[in-house]
Amino acid sequence: TTKMACCGNCFCCQCCCREGETRTPEELKRLHRFLFWLLQSLDYDRCINEPHVEFLEGIDNKKARKYEAIRWMMMFAIGVTVGLVGLFVDFFVHLFTKIKFTVVGDSVEKCSDKGCLPLSLLELLAFNMTFIFIASVLVLIEPVAAGSGIPEIKSYLNGVKIPGIVRLRTFLCKAAGVLFSVAGGLFVGKEGPMIHSGAIVGAGLPQFESITFKRIKFDFPYFRSDRDKRDFVSAGAAAGVAAAFGAPIGGMLFSLEEGSSFWNQALTWKVLFCSMSATFTLNFFRSGINFSKWGSFQLPGLLNFGEFKCPDGDTNCHLWTAVDLAFFVLMGVVGGLLGALFNCMNRKLAKYRIRHIHPKAKFIRVLESLLVSMVTTVVIFAASILLGECRDLSSPTTHNTTLSGSEDINSTIRRFFCTNKTYNDMATLFFNPQEAAIHQLFHQDGTFSPMTLSVFFLLYFLLACWTYGVSVPSGLFVPSLLCGAAFGRLVSNILKVKLGMDIYSGTFALIGAAAFLGGVVRMTISLTVILIESTNEITYGLPIMITLMVAKWTGDFFNKGIYDIHIQLRGVPLLEWETEIEMDKLTASDIMEPNLTYVYPHTRVQSLVSILRTTVYHAFPVVTENRQNEQDFMKGNILVSNNIHFKKSSVMSRAGEQRRRCQSMKSYPSSELRNVCDEQNAAVEPAEEGEDLLQQMLERRYAPYPNLYPDQSPSEEWTMEERFRPLTFHGLILRSQLVNLLIRGVCYAENQSSATQPRLSYAEMTEDYPRYPDIHDLDLTLLNPRMIVDVTPYMNSCPYTVSPNTRISQVFNLFRTMGLRHLPVVNAVGEIVGIITRHNLTQEFLVAKLRQHYITI
Amino acid sequence: TTKMACCGNCFCCQCCCREGETRTPEELKRLHRFLFWLLQSLDYDRCINEPHVEFLEGIDNKKARKYEAIRWMMMFAIGVTVGLVGLFVDFFVHLFTKIKFTVVGDSVEKCSDKGCLPLSLLELLAFNMTFIFIASVLVLIEPVAAGSGIPEIKSYLNGVKIPGIVRLRTFLCKAAGVLFSVAGGLFVGKEGPMIHSGAIVGAGLPQFESITFKRIKFDFPYFRSDRDKRDFVSAGAAAGVAAAFGAPIGGMLFSLEEGSSFWNQALTWKVLFCSMSATFTLNFFRSGINFSKWGSFQLPGLLNFGEFKCPDGDTNCHLWTAVDLAFFVLMGVVGGLLGALFNCMNRKLAKYRIRHIHPKAKFIRVLESLLVSMVTTVVIFAASILLGECRDLSSPTTHNTTLSGSEDINSTIRRFFCTNKTYNDMATLFFNPQEAAIHQLFHQDGTFSPMTLSVFFLLYFLLACWTYGVSVPSGLFVPSLLCGAAFGRLVSNILKVKLGMDIYSGTFALIGAAAFLGGVVRMTISLTVILIESTNEITYGLPIMITLMVAKWTGDFFNKGIYDIHIQLRGVPLLEWETEIEMDKLTASDIMEPNLTYVYPHTRVQSLVSILRTTVYHAFPVVTENRQNEQDFMKGNILVSNNIHFKKSSVMSRAGEQRRRCQSMKSYPSSELRNVCDEQNAAVEPAEEGEDLLQQMLERRYAPYPNLYPDQSPSEEWTMEERFRPLTFHGLILRSQLVNLLIRGVCYAENQSSATQPRLSYAEMTEDYPRYPDIHDLDLTLLNPRMIVDVTPYMNSCPYTVSPNTRISQVFNLFRTMGLRHLPVVNAVGEIVGIITRHNLTQEFLVAKLRQHYITI
Repeated sequence: TTKMACCGNCFCCQCCCREGETRTPEELKRLHRFLFWLLQSLDYDRCINEPHVEFLEGIDNKKARKYEAIRWMMMFAIGVTVGLVGLFVDFFVHLFTKIKFTVVGDSVEKCSDKGCLPLSLLELLAFNMTFIFIASVLVLIEPVAAGSGIPEIKSYLNGVKIPGIVRLRTFLCKAAGVLFSVAGGLFVGKEGPMIHSGAIVGAGLPQFESITFKRIKFDFPYFRSDRDKRDFVSAGAAAGVAAAFGAPIGGMLFSLEEGSSFWNQALTWKVLFCSMSATFTLNFFRSGINFSKWGSFQLPGLLNFGEFKCPDGDTNCHLWTAVDLAFFVLMGVVGGLLGALFNCMNRKLAKYRIRHIHPKAKFIRVLESLLVSMVTTVVIFAASILLGECRDLSSPTTHNTTLSGSEDINSTIRRFFCTNKTYNDMATLFFNPQEAAIHQLFHQDGTFSPMTLSVFFLLYFLLACWTYGVSVPSGLFVPSLLCGAAFGRLVSNILKVKLGMDIYSGTFALIGAAAFLGGVVRMTISLTVILIESTNEITYGLPIMITLMVAKWTGDFFNKGIYDIHIQLRGVPLLEWETEIEMDKLTASDIMEPNLTYVYPHTRVQSLVSILRTTVYHAFPVVTENRQNEQDFMKGNILVSNNIHFKKSSVMSRAGEQRRRCQSMKSYPSSELRNVCDEQNAAVEPAEEGEDLLQQMLERRYAPYPNLYPDQSPSEEWTMEERFRPLTFHGLILRSQLVNLLIRGVCYAENQSSATQPRLSYAEMTEDYPRYPDIHDLDLTLLNPRMIVDVTPYMNSCPYTVSPNTRISQVFNLFRTMGLRHLPVVNAVGEIVGIITRHNLTQEFLVAKLRQHYITI
Repeated sequence: TTKMACCGNCFCCQCCCREGETRTPEELKRLHRFLFWLLQSLDYDRCINEPHVEFLEGIDNKKARKYEAIRWMMMFAIGVTVGLVGLFVDFFVHLFTKIKFTVVGDSVEKCSDKGCLPLSLLELLAFNMTFIFIASVLVLIEPVAAGSGIPEIKSYLNGVKIPGIVRLRTFLCKAAGVLFSVAGGLFVGKEGPMIHSGAIVGAGLPQFESITFKRIKFDFPYFRSDRDKRDFVSAGAAAGVAAAFGAPIGGMLFSLEEGSSFWNQALTWKVLFCSMSATFTLNFFRSGINFSKWGSFQLPGLLNFGEFKCPDGDTNCHLWTAVDLAFFVLMGVVGGLLGALFNCMNRKLAKYRIRHIHPKAKFIRVLESLLVSMVTTVVIFAASILLGECRDLSSPTTHNTTLSGSEDINSTIRRFFCTNKTYNDMATLFFNPQEAAIHQLFHQDGTFSPMTLSVFFLLYFLLACWTYGVSVPSGLFVPSLLCGAAFGRLVSNILKVKLGMDIYSGTFALIGAAAFLGGVVRMTISLTVILIESTNEITYGLPIMITLMVAKWTGDFFNKGIYDIHIQLRGVPLLEWETEIEMDKLTASDIMEPNLTYVYPHTRVQSLVSILRTTVYHAFPVVTENRQNEQDFMKGNILVSNNIHFKKSSVMSRAGEQRRRCQSMKSYPSSELRNVCDEQNAAVEPAEEGEDLLQQMLERRYAPYPNLYPDQSPSEEWTMEERFRPLTFHGLILRSQLVNLLIRGVCYAENQSSATQPRLSYAEMTEDYPRYPDIHDLDLTLLNPRMIVDVTPYMNSCPYTVSPNTRISQVFNLFRTMGLRHLPVVNAVGEIVGIITRHNLTQEFLVAKLRQHYITI
């Protein structure tokens, strides 16, 4: 059972279940349940069935306005909370870092005379490894809290529910963990975890209850649907970005870019409000605490880049000119290449971790974190002591760019072993919080030697790459920015000092940072805006945008963005922005799943239980059988016969489709198809293993449970025509709804009218959200198998449907923009011929189908 | 025929056709054609029929990448062109204004001694009225060029094609006209017309041909669809905003907010690129021309607000504090009220103009413009001379906020009759370009007297209200900003001088401007971002946003935004963001149009011609008749009978629906329904008149044209059951496609197979875009009426459909986000029961239907 618990906790280590081929029924039941919760899709589409309509009838415009007001208040509350979380993290990181660097820095200064440097190193090691140990243990408690959290949030906003990512426990581990992992001197940022924390606040706050702490439960019956929850999660994630970067507009665009639903103006406006609340809450408290100026707003985000400004009176100084743009493009290319290299290396590392570290005992992960921490600490220390050069300090009387009032740029330089008026450039970069190092690279007028910058870049690149994926909460923005800033500063050094060009170094450092970050994460619109807002300088718009564009295009030539790589490694069926135009050669009937498990409008309890226990589908079409004999009538008129001919030929039936598929499978060697599939699946190994499990599950589906009602088992001896007989489609019903109906005893006796069936209210239908009971928790002895359930009042009687010959782009657009979960394919006479889910629309699946299409024709 | 030409030109003056009740057939034919083009819907949904598939088969990924590259280049070209247009307008406005004010200013200074002031007034009048005369005449050439153009662009992006708004002629008149109307001293801005011009550039440039100048025609066969065109129009409009305000992100959000389709990341990214190109093209040339600093980028947009900055060293100065927020909220309320008043007055004025000015001869409009110009000039002059007070100038040694390098703030003060060291405050505001006056209010440390500010506000408010709607190109942003800034400055005067509070006047002026502008236009996200970008100060985010929010909410309590008011007055069927939750009490069957004009898959030429000539619909469902006798089979099993019972009862038929409607009409007094409708329509008078015309058209539809093929006329003696017999739905075909098929002779003879029908290629089908030939241009003698057209290869065989009991919110979302034009309503057995178009989803229609719903139940 520990093995299973591991599975339950860490959804990316499905491989750990591999060895155990023989399972007890109990194990299999848990596995079943695990697979059931695993990567469920969100339901963004609103289903209006009978209880909902009754609920609606009670809603007049006045009540609707009240709901709207509550929604606005919730947005404000989320924003403020996220701001406070940011404040909390920032405060303690600052505190711990300050203590650490003061103690160790003093010790180094002292020891540089006395020669007791190893002691200083030990001090630093003790600090760092303690912090990392705490962070690592916190992640052990909730494994989902590892990493930056952006892949998880991206998946969630894309419509995939990953278990545990929006829980209170995850939040606590993440917020506390990131504090220690940043304070512990690892090359990680706090921005990604801030976004994840924000998303959890968004998901949790409006629910007013918690699964982690059962005690927290208020009577607040609003927002009990995936749709509302997802809206709040977008707002929370946006607030996280806003707090992290002081970029409310960037935050809004981030949630749009990742949230990817249709453009909903009302929601976007609320999201912007939420982001603004977060930014300014943080701003308010930080200004108050740091400067004791309560009521003023001077410190925008956790990370800001200071003010880029030409010295007053210098009219020949420009932040950038048209000529510089050419260099920016080149830097974009290099940034894209470096980013691609980073991603490639990190991907290899992540695969290695999945294979060799995750299956082992948990403390191995803690050991890895400690190892990374130790190496990082030693590198920092050794590089600062051994590799630094003493550089002239620019005279403090000339223009000091103030860090938007927070501290003087020269207050964070390090003098290690250097005489007065000079400073140790390597130590200044390594022996400071990362934000201070970024500020140094952006604004320090004093120079850094090219050697120092190169070594710094190389060491940082390698260590950051190793660090991302270790099981501590770890963001990637700040390390990438710092790494890229070093690269940019190197370029500016060469251009300014070697070639004597008249440029502004800070701009080049900024562009270098943008190029590398863009090469790694491959975000577009939101990243542009976030960087513009962080610099608070609208004129940087064009260079930043062009750099990011070039970096993305260059990087995309080699691989995907780092977040997409990690999402893919976890086997999440993410939907892209749009399909390639080539995919339009396929139609809905090519990609749909034609094997349906369906229910009738009026079904016996025994059949329902049997269906629910032997399948893992989340929704079932409600159908009636269509056995009418078609009577053609032909008249002498060729027009009529043409029309009738058209009608018959254009209607696709399930049996016909199945026949066609069988024939086309036979028409080419099956091994070839298998190769196609294998080749495709090799890239997404863990996912495939998940599917294998599922396959095994489904193959054995009659084994683990005794057939409860043997006289009514699905007729396996049906002929194909019987199996695929025409079914008129009437609606969709969710598994959770069916289980709910069974648990609450909604059914009627055979000899009565269906009107005698008890009715559930809207509140009763949504009461258990988001954890609906499982079919296996149902006590079957309480049910009368001969009773009949009328599902029609509870089904979604008018979901969006497509016709079988709809082109993929159209299917995809509908599915993605409407946030659907199941899309029935219905032919011209109203018969259901298949169903399309998220899995049928992933890039991998479509590519495989397209190859098959080429082979067939 | 002049009467008709008037109609053809000005789509908002449908009333002018009212008096002529008796029309010649020629007139009626023109009217028919006019109504046909009037307010056509755009087709955003991609229709993939047979020629398109063949076209697609030829597209591999390589070719698709080439298309993508062309698209990017087009975006860049649009951006650069819009930037250049902005440069052109700005340059000449500056030139003319400078000449004017220099000449007249000198004259005033001279005359203040000599007493020849009337002469100065005459000089000013001569300048202004000449300019306005030119602007007015340009608008006579192309009446659509009047006004700001934002209502038109908003309608276009919403999916309504208004004739002439994206033509080259409109562009020329608009760009030249706005130049003269701004230079002519009217209280109008150039920002709205810039946005319109940008949209036209976007629509026109990628087409490489023009309807205005037939000679311009390159062989460039890309982007020949409404979808592509609309995408480019969004980009162009965004570029217009970006150029006007130096706000590329704001521009992107503007086109998202108004464009309102689904969130398309790829497009949004291109739009941002286009906006950036526009901003920086303008910036490049303006920096080069104004400062001779080619290659630097120092002058962002046509309108910018200068730099808000505390004097160096003054640590107690804050741009705003938490306490100020309370005042900002109050100012938001007042701004909302003032905006609502402005809109209300302007609405009354616009209605008056539609009734009394537009129907008259065209030169009346020119006279009105001249009158407005004369009054404005006299007011400006008189107020400057008579009402100004002499105020102390702040000493130039203290902090002068530089106008981002362009000119010193004190260079635009006016000294009229004031001694040295003082200036005339009223003249400084009135006797300057509006941008300079805004800068004065935002940044002038010297004070304005409360009296002056009040008078200025009042006069400006009234004159701006009168001006907007006069037939010259006229934006509304700058006048609103100036008006609001005066209000804000007034508040700051009171707080600072009277109450002695320590506040930053510029911020209050800015917030006042935001509040009033927000109260007038009621834009949300994009306006917030535009203002933030214009100030180049991210910390203004929260106050601007809160002010705009409060102003919008306050204003919405009374009426709509000014643009929406003008859209409504023109009777454009604009779709809102979303429906009210109450509307979910209605279903698709309640709002659909059940009377269908349909075609068969194989139809005779004579029937097609007859249908096309006697209807004005833009699309026809392709159906087959469904005369099968339903054979019910009942077994002893109650489950089966339940299911069959469900099937029968849940399927809605057209005949049944029609019967139901007739009965419900009878069940309550028809006068009551009529009242409901009348009351509703009273608000949208012109639209109603348009419908009346349409009604007349439809009633007489058999009259004007001789029935060409009397033996095949639609059977009017059909019984209702016959009329509403079940029709299986197979696809949609557009009017333009049918006409195209007829013109190109796509048909086959009765005794041949439909395979013999000639096939059209994709290029042939789209060649005539966007002006497809009219059915009335068809030479009927060339057609053989007995031939049969097989429309199936050309129809849209899988449009999105909904079922009859789909709730309105779902229908609305589908229609709006997918940019549909026709949405067939199809029942559970695949029969079409009605069709939904844009008109069935407008707020007015839904409200009327909801009332009817309440009356019926």
